[in-house]
Amino acid sequence: MRYGVVGVGGVGGFYGGMLAKGGFETVFVTKQRYLSVFKDKGLTVESYKHGKFTVKESGKVVFTDSYDVLKDCDVVLLCVKSYDTESVVQELSKVNGDFAVVSVQNGIENEEIIGRYLGDDRVIGATAFIGSYLKEPGVIVHEAAGLLEIGEIDGKISDRIKHIAADMEKAGIDVRISKDINYTLWKKLLWNVAFNPYSVVTGVTVGQMLEFEYTRSILKNLMLECKKVAAAYGISLKDSTIEGYLKSSSDLREYKTSMLLDFERGKPIEIEGITGALIRKAKRKGMKIPYNECVYGTVKFFDLQRKI
Amino acid sequence: MRYGVVGVGGVGGFYGGMLAKGGFETVFVTKQRYLSVFKDKGLTVESYKHGKFTVKESGKVVFTDSYDVLKDCDVVLLCVKSYDTESVVQELSKVNGDFAVVSVQNGIENEEIIGRYLGDDRVIGATAFIGSYLKEPGVIVHEAAGLLEIGEIDGKISDRIKHIAADMEKAGIDVRISKDINYTLWKKLLWNVAFNPYSVVTGVTVGQMLEFEYTRSILKNLMLECKKVAAAYGISLKDSTIEGYLKSSSDLREYKTSMLLDFERGKPIEIEGITGALIRKAKRKGMKIPYNECVYGTVKFFDLQRKI
Repeated sequence: MRYGVVGVGGVGGFYGGMLAKGGFETVFVTKQRYLSVFKDKGLTVESYKHGKFTVKESGKVVFTDSYDVLKDCDVVLLCVKSYDTESVVQELSKVNGDFAVVSVQNGIENEEIIGRYLGDDRVIGATAFIGSYLKEPGVIVHEAAGLLEIGEIDGKISDRIKHIAADMEKAGIDVRISKDINYTLWKKLLWNVAFNPYSVVTGVTVGQMLEFEYTRSILKNLMLECKKVAAAYGISLKDSTIEGYLKSSSDLREYKTSMLLDFERGKPIEIEGITGALIRKAKRKGMKIPYNECVYGTVKFFDLQRKI
Repeated sequence: MRYGVVGVGGVGGFYGGMLAKGGFETVFVTKQRYLSVFKDKGLTVESYKHGKFTVKESGKVVFTDSYDVLKDCDVVLLCVKSYDTESVVQELSKVNGDFAVVSVQNGIENEEIIGRYLGDDRVIGATAFIGSYLKEPGVIVHEAAGLLEIGEIDGKISDRIKHIAADMEKAGIDVRISKDINYTLWKKLLWNVAFNPYSVVTGVTVGQMLEFEYTRSILKNLMLECKKVAAAYGISLKDSTIEGYLKSSSDLREYKTSMLLDFERGKPIEIEGITGALIRKAKRKGMKIPYNECVYGTVKFFDLQRKI
């Protein structure tokens, strides 16, 4: 199959880079201002697991800033931050192709947005459990994990899912087909909704938040509210998952969340895709989630403040 | 009547200073380390309204670090921060006297604590609407307002209340007898519970918090929860009070809460007497107040962090 990758950061750069290295036709869509870097130097991945490799433009590998080149793709990996989902999907909807779109993103609204513009049958869900980041344009550092779970929204093990998983496996990606990708997405949201925004409020590492009774209790309440909303959508998250997330470990002592890192670096933060999405989901069911609302409002305020 | 004042900071220094200046016998109990300053230089008040005056030790005015001197007082004004209430009241309970105690403090647990050690009939409630602070030991700056409302807990207009109010008026204090001091205390708590702790979370002025939808909404929810708890104790706070508190004004633009100022100066903060007290009151009625719990936990965390 022919692959497209939109968003060549830590996530898209790694998975797309692996596919290209594995010999698959891959089209990378990036921002215009980075394009010359890719054209000149290609895409380099420095992986703790797969070593350092560079993928250069060739007959099989294309770097472009034009969405139109995606028209011959079978599958597009959507790897942009959730605050860019809608604008990117609007662009994708103008492309005259029938590729499936795999959302490799944080949040729980991306699949809905993709479906709204492209049709639900073209949407595939995914969660990436990976530690990777953009060191500089064109250079990705992959420093931890890497598991990609993919699945049809309706849970069916379709031919296309099997085909994608087989290709990825051939390319060396640690991939798993999820029979319940909604559950997997909510389970990931459970962590994201607590640790990411509250770390922006506290300004400290995950380990420091877990060390104190007061902050651990707030993290727990943020997750309990998420669990309640999930239940209203038929997703049964487990108390044991919450308890697991609340266990501190030496790995986490110095670990800063991606949202805090983005905040500190003056980058946009994914608060809307994560907490904003949960609050909207809750509202649709007539539910209030005050811990999340309180943390959300505070993070939004900090986000506005730094723009002044 | 003979007056005692415990805690000679912005509040105790002003009201006690006015009584002493007015010719009433006044005993000031202060910390041992400040005593020599008072003995040498007396107590100076720099008031926007009453000018600058100094009260020196004399037959009528006593500065001491010993609670025992209070034994001949009729009335003791308790003007310490709420986190010191319990330890001070324990000392007062050892004094062989039957003075009434007027709590001129923030919070809603002080009266209970005083009653527990000294008997409920010795407690008088009060709220001070005043802008004053300790410039240096022995020097108080009074820069705004000054109204003191006092009242018996049961609302009766007792002889002692009339007597105290008359004395204070003679001394030039702006005093009013409250027929419902509980209501007045809760009304003050309504402001305190929102603006004080949340200003420690945001680190900004009252005006800045009121300027943005997100933070204003959180302040409103903090107050709505307080209103609910008050109702469970038979106190009907008004929506119009909340709306009034949420109106921004030019006075507030640069106004920092006392809790934020204390926090920034590395001093202890009154989070327990304010939000901690409200959470305990709620718990006793089986109520949850998540906005307040979330803000409380965050402030407690910041308070712990700065001690590390």
